[in-house]
Amino acid sequence: MRVKIALEEKGIEYVCQPQNLLNKGSLLLEMNPVYKLVPVLIHNGKPISESLVILEYIDEFWAKSFPLLPIDPYQRSQARFWADFIDKKIYAVAKQLWRVKGEEQEKIIKEFIENLKILEREITDDKFFGGDTFGYVDVALIPFTSWFYTLETFGNFSIEANCPIIIAWAKRCKERHSVSSSLPDPDKVYNFALDFKKALGLD
Amino acid sequence: MRVKIALEEKGIEYVCQPQNLLNKGSLLLEMNPVYKLVPVLIHNGKPISESLVILEYIDEFWAKSFPLLPIDPYQRSQARFWADFIDKKIYAVAKQLWRVKGEEQEKIIKEFIENLKILEREITDDKFFGGDTFGYVDVALIPFTSWFYTLETFGNFSIEANCPIIIAWAKRCKERHSVSSSLPDPDKVYNFALDFKKALGLD
Repeated sequence: MRVKIALEEKGIEYVCQPQNLLNKGSLLLEMNPVYKLVPVLIHNGKPISESLVILEYIDEFWAKSFPLLPIDPYQRSQARFWADFIDKKIYAVAKQLWRVKGEEQEKIIKEFIENLKILEREITDDKFFGGDTFGYVDVALIPFTSWFYTLETFGNFSIEANCPIIIAWAKRCKERHSVSSSLPDPDKVYNFALDFKKALGLD
Repeated sequence: MRVKIALEEKGIEYVCQPQNLLNKGSLLLEMNPVYKLVPVLIHNGKPISESLVILEYIDEFWAKSFPLLPIDPYQRSQARFWADFIDKKIYAVAKQLWRVKGEEQEKIIKEFIENLKILEREITDDKFFGGDTFGYVDVALIPFTSWFYTLETFGNFSIEANCPIIIAWAKRCKERHSVSSSLPDPDKVYNFALDFKKALGLD
């Protein structure tokens, strides 16, 4: 989703080849032999893996249209810091949340909310991360919001009640065509997670 | 160590303020409130955290002297991919190695060696990662080699017997003043790890 949004914002045409992650295709195994994971961007016949690495590549190769990272080196460093935080402290923590129950789950929900609150402080004046324009950190976080309904349902808590600034920010992001056309329906994500839990024997 | 090596290569003067990580100073807590970890680079009064983020900042701010990342966007993406791999698959795996024993340790040693072998394939023609010149991926990995003696001793295995290309590469890196002046003595690292294991009640 990050890659799709970035390509849309840059106005680059692309072909998306979805992968069955339970039965990975030979192209994926050949293009990302290290992790065998999506996304992989294949450009001029050469593969690039890891979504944040791909975003930087897209921003550098198509530098003129819709810059994702700011120009100032310090602001760039802060954007990279927060995108990395999102991977380490939002995605990684949420991944644990729907695999556990009871007290253990309560603890993870608390940590998850605290981390979202840390991010809320970085949303500038009711706009986007780091400024008035949609950019790198927004692209890094917005796909994750399509998991909110699933997490809230599994964990029986409300993200909006705890983090209204994030919810308002997500609504602003979804006004962009790049975002609304790339994010899946939250119901589909929930059904996917339900099936996945069953397949893992977690329910 | 990554930050010291990069600053040395760029010819930037700096003051290093070591931290007692069991009793963190107020400057560290103020400058890195999110992770409360070193390294933090304070430049023009503003803090930057996370070592790979700092390396990118140093390379962008002092762009003219001794570039760390290549110029070509694709080569840059590959350098970022491997630096990220080093964090996820070398540092993170090794961290587990000396905390466990027996079969569990054997499994981790096997994974660790496999990951080092994956990296060995990226060292070009007996030189450095990605080319003839010392750069970003070399800076990312070389500090880790000061842990080799400790890991070999705790795990009772030889890295050189399994990964001679990495050992030869490390020797080439250590011919650089930036590296030899920044890396600690392996004996000191071992004693530090011994003390740490005792403090954690692991021995």
